[in-house]
Amino acid sequence: MVKGFRAAAVCAGLKKNGKKDLALIVSDPPAAAAGVFTQNRVQAAPVRLDKQRLSSGVCRAIIVNSGNANCCTGDQGMEDARAMTRLAAEAINADDAHVMAASTGVIGQPLNMDKIRAAVPGLAGGLSPDGFEAAAEAIMTTDTRPKLVSGQGQMGEKTYSLAAMAKGSGMIRPDMATMLCFVCTDLEIAAVDLQQALVSANEASFNRITIDGDTSTNDTVLVLANGQSGAQAKTPADLRAFAELLENVLGKLARMIVEDGEGATKCVEISVINAESRENARQMADTVANSSLVKTAFFGEDANWGRIIAALGRAGVKFDPDAVDIWFDDVKIVEKGMGCGDTAEAAATEVLRKKTFVVTIDVKSGSQQAAVLTCDFSVDYVKINADYRS
Amino acid sequence: MVKGFRAAAVCAGLKKNGKKDLALIVSDPPAAAAGVFTQNRVQAAPVRLDKQRLSSGVCRAIIVNSGNANCCTGDQGMEDARAMTRLAAEAINADDAHVMAASTGVIGQPLNMDKIRAAVPGLAGGLSPDGFEAAAEAIMTTDTRPKLVSGQGQMGEKTYSLAAMAKGSGMIRPDMATMLCFVCTDLEIAAVDLQQALVSANEASFNRITIDGDTSTNDTVLVLANGQSGAQAKTPADLRAFAELLENVLGKLARMIVEDGEGATKCVEISVINAESRENARQMADTVANSSLVKTAFFGEDANWGRIIAALGRAGVKFDPDAVDIWFDDVKIVEKGMGCGDTAEAAATEVLRKKTFVVTIDVKSGSQQAAVLTCDFSVDYVKINADYRS
Repeated sequence: MVKGFRAAAVCAGLKKNGKKDLALIVSDPPAAAAGVFTQNRVQAAPVRLDKQRLSSGVCRAIIVNSGNANCCTGDQGMEDARAMTRLAAEAINADDAHVMAASTGVIGQPLNMDKIRAAVPGLAGGLSPDGFEAAAEAIMTTDTRPKLVSGQGQMGEKTYSLAAMAKGSGMIRPDMATMLCFVCTDLEIAAVDLQQALVSANEASFNRITIDGDTSTNDTVLVLANGQSGAQAKTPADLRAFAELLENVLGKLARMIVEDGEGATKCVEISVINAESRENARQMADTVANSSLVKTAFFGEDANWGRIIAALGRAGVKFDPDAVDIWFDDVKIVEKGMGCGDTAEAAATEVLRKKTFVVTIDVKSGSQQAAVLTCDFSVDYVKINADYRS
Repeated sequence: MVKGFRAAAVCAGLKKNGKKDLALIVSDPPAAAAGVFTQNRVQAAPVRLDKQRLSSGVCRAIIVNSGNANCCTGDQGMEDARAMTRLAAEAINADDAHVMAASTGVIGQPLNMDKIRAAVPGLAGGLSPDGFEAAAEAIMTTDTRPKLVSGQGQMGEKTYSLAAMAKGSGMIRPDMATMLCFVCTDLEIAAVDLQQALVSANEASFNRITIDGDTSTNDTVLVLANGQSGAQAKTPADLRAFAELLENVLGKLARMIVEDGEGATKCVEISVINAESRENARQMADTVANSSLVKTAFFGEDANWGRIIAALGRAGVKFDPDAVDIWFDDVKIVEKGMGCGDTAEAAATEVLRKKTFVVTIDVKSGSQQAAVLTCDFSVDYVKINADYRS
């Protein structure tokens, strides 16, 4: 429980499967707010609206629907996003400029505002300090389970709390604030400091995961801080402590997203070490992590390291293939660009049978490193995405 | 039949399934030679060998094995590639500097030279002007059918012929000489002109297809021209005519590769028109063509154009999403960034049921265009690649 926050969720009828699809998160006092958003050039209406409203640094509530992305919906889409926030604002007696919106689901279909309008009174009536689990369910699309993480921190004598929920299962890759995530804390912190903490925590968490290399039009991470715990983050040390807690919480959610990746059976960290620059290391790790052939080999539990080497070779980074070592966990399978033989391969195959493991690639070009979390590419991924709208 | 060329294939035992896996293509007189190769930084031993040998511009024969890529095999791999060419050279009484090698299959395993050594005499003994079909079979890996195209051209009074074979089904994407392809012609043409014609034909054919966005360590296209028809390409007009024929033949093979893409059920042209530059158009077309979400929607025959727009948005090119039109063949499904409604979507779904169709994306930013051929992403792609080595 985070002081001064309540949440609720209902079935408005936007999802075809009749599950919860509309959520509301409210801070009773106005909260400081920060946000990061998709880097895709195509941005959904609620993303564009939130970016405008975030400039005030103040937020009272977030209204979120699943089942429809409200993207590629033109002027009507912007009007609908505004109307969603107005309905929420009226129900909780807030200024609608202080309400944010988020949507996730199919692109290119108008939002059914009648259903939302009919559902909001019941939604607001159900607000409760215990409503976070229901809200986390309501923002799911192809996710198989809700994703909630909480944390606590200390500032001087005072304890503050933090609760975060996320959704995301497909259309996920690094270099943006992937998916939806809402974080509530009762810490007191200035909006500008909150933004800085979010940008850095996001960089180290959601920007380091990939599922299918596609990116979304709706990605939104919002953090609200309402100060109700009495704990205040003022000194650089306070801010660092909060940023660390936030990074830790978002890191856990990021891993939960990959573990729940569409069709995923494995969660694999790709770590490139001893690169010439951090940028090089990232590019190489990302290329391996997004390779369909590497990911299908993980699914097949096949220690086919040749595909890892081949993916490295197209990452656009200079390196010496004859210097590369590769480990699966602590099993060295490639030394100086060549296979370590049948015993090593058998041991590596054992590692591949695990649900989670680390592939370390030593490129011996320098001293920089980067890692990215990915999942395998399964038959179910294709089935899920071939049938998504039907 | 192309004058002065013979080919043969045998089962050397390199493929686990007992099918043909060793091929030899011979020009009886020395031929002018040209080649293009993978742009991957990791290059198989035969690729490195051929690049050295191509500088002479002369080739008598190409020996090709499937079942093993001879890549990431160190000094022994280079020695094995040389030994393959030496065995072929001895069998046909040629200088081994005039023999090229190519390999395709699993990366990182030593070549079984005993099997190749034992097979070469029978291979050479079987050389015949009718051996091209057998050779085209022997170079297959996950291909489901051999890929052969022939053509004829006229230079003055003389007719010349051209026969080309290719293999390729996965690890395919633009921006390189993807897969293996061998072209034989009895035209007389200087090696330097042949190289120029190949580079341009390759750019317009094999560099404009994608299957899974991964690239290979072994891609090789070799063209041999032995002059036996008596037709000579000397004037700029002759060279242009030959380059056109070559582009036409390689274009057909490129389409055959996509149609036979691993698990593919559809062959789709992604065409971006009215872009600011050709480079922008290519980047946008390639991003859409490689999107897992777009490709699984094709497989599901789902007119989910939102995924096309979302992929455009991450192509790294500036454009106005609210200006974009999208057609599936002649059905307009998106106008000015918004869906054209249920009737259009039903008509587009009919187009998606076809085996081959064109997606045209008008970005209205200029007058340049580019197209790329892709396939859908099916359950079978994952199955094929999860099980490839087992």
